[in-house]
Amino acid sequence: MSPETAQMSGLYEPQLTTLTREECLDLLSGAVVGRIGYVADGRAIIIPVNFALLDGDIVFCTAKGSKLSWLSLRGRVAFEADESRLADHEGWSVLIQGVAREVTDPEELAVLRRGPLHSWLRSSHEHWVRISIEAMSGRALHRAQSTDRITRA
Amino acid sequence: MSPETAQMSGLYEPQLTTLTREECLDLLSGAVVGRIGYVADGRAIIIPVNFALLDGDIVFCTAKGSKLSWLSLRGRVAFEADESRLADHEGWSVLIQGVAREVTDPEELAVLRRGPLHSWLRSSHEHWVRISIEAMSGRALHRAQSTDRITRA
Repeated sequence: MSPETAQMSGLYEPQLTTLTREECLDLLSGAVVGRIGYVADGRAIIIPVNFALLDGDIVFCTAKGSKLSWLSLRGRVAFEADESRLADHEGWSVLIQGVAREVTDPEELAVLRRGPLHSWLRSSHEHWVRISIEAMSGRALHRAQSTDRITRA
Repeated sequence: MSPETAQMSGLYEPQLTTLTREECLDLLSGAVVGRIGYVADGRAIIIPVNFALLDGDIVFCTAKGSKLSWLSLRGRVAFEADESRLADHEGWSVLIQGVAREVTDPEELAVLRRGPLHSWLRSSHEHWVRISIEAMSGRALHRAQSTDRITRA
């Protein structure tokens, strides 16, 4: 039976699992692009950032602009990362609530600048933002072969 | 000169371009996973969805749950989709502000169910949500060879 036939017959049922904190951090450490969410004028704004995980915090680098303007308004932000394998309809996502602050301490900045992360858009006006994680949840969608379906087939 | 050397020497400068509405819609029509953002208790919430573009609207299918609870509270949502080519540090993103509503009209539901989109997690309790786009902006990051740098090299 081809995978397509198995899929059509329902042999492979997608299964949703809840990820542990360790699994979430492990997936985040292998991801590069995430999205921050914040509230402006009562509406949600989503902006993609390339990020890294540093000592359990989300860090990203940005040129001064819209991504920073919210920091002075409200440090509480959402952060999201996900990956999907379209052909398999599999994937994972991690949702975070946290508190963001701009990094201004020279020693902390030096550590960040030695790290692997750079803004993809080069700028001499780079700013570093660090999000401490307050709450984190993750889910993964796997395609598992259903023995129940096989029995009934 | 290898691409790596060119990159290190700054020959390839990333260039940020603003996308037209038509370019945004074209990129969205080839994407599958996006994220909705909404406000709950004054905080931004981001949730990934697999979506499709239908007659200029964003549509997605979800089981009843957290993704729907905000619809009764506030129909104004953010939507974001992006794609990145990590090896090239290239990519695009489209940011949308829109109004979401659950689709309940039987004829409209029939059209949606005939379409290519299904929730990856099968459920007999599927709900369809349609976001009409109020504002849309898109950006693309390309790596272009800088002739200026070549002249000065």
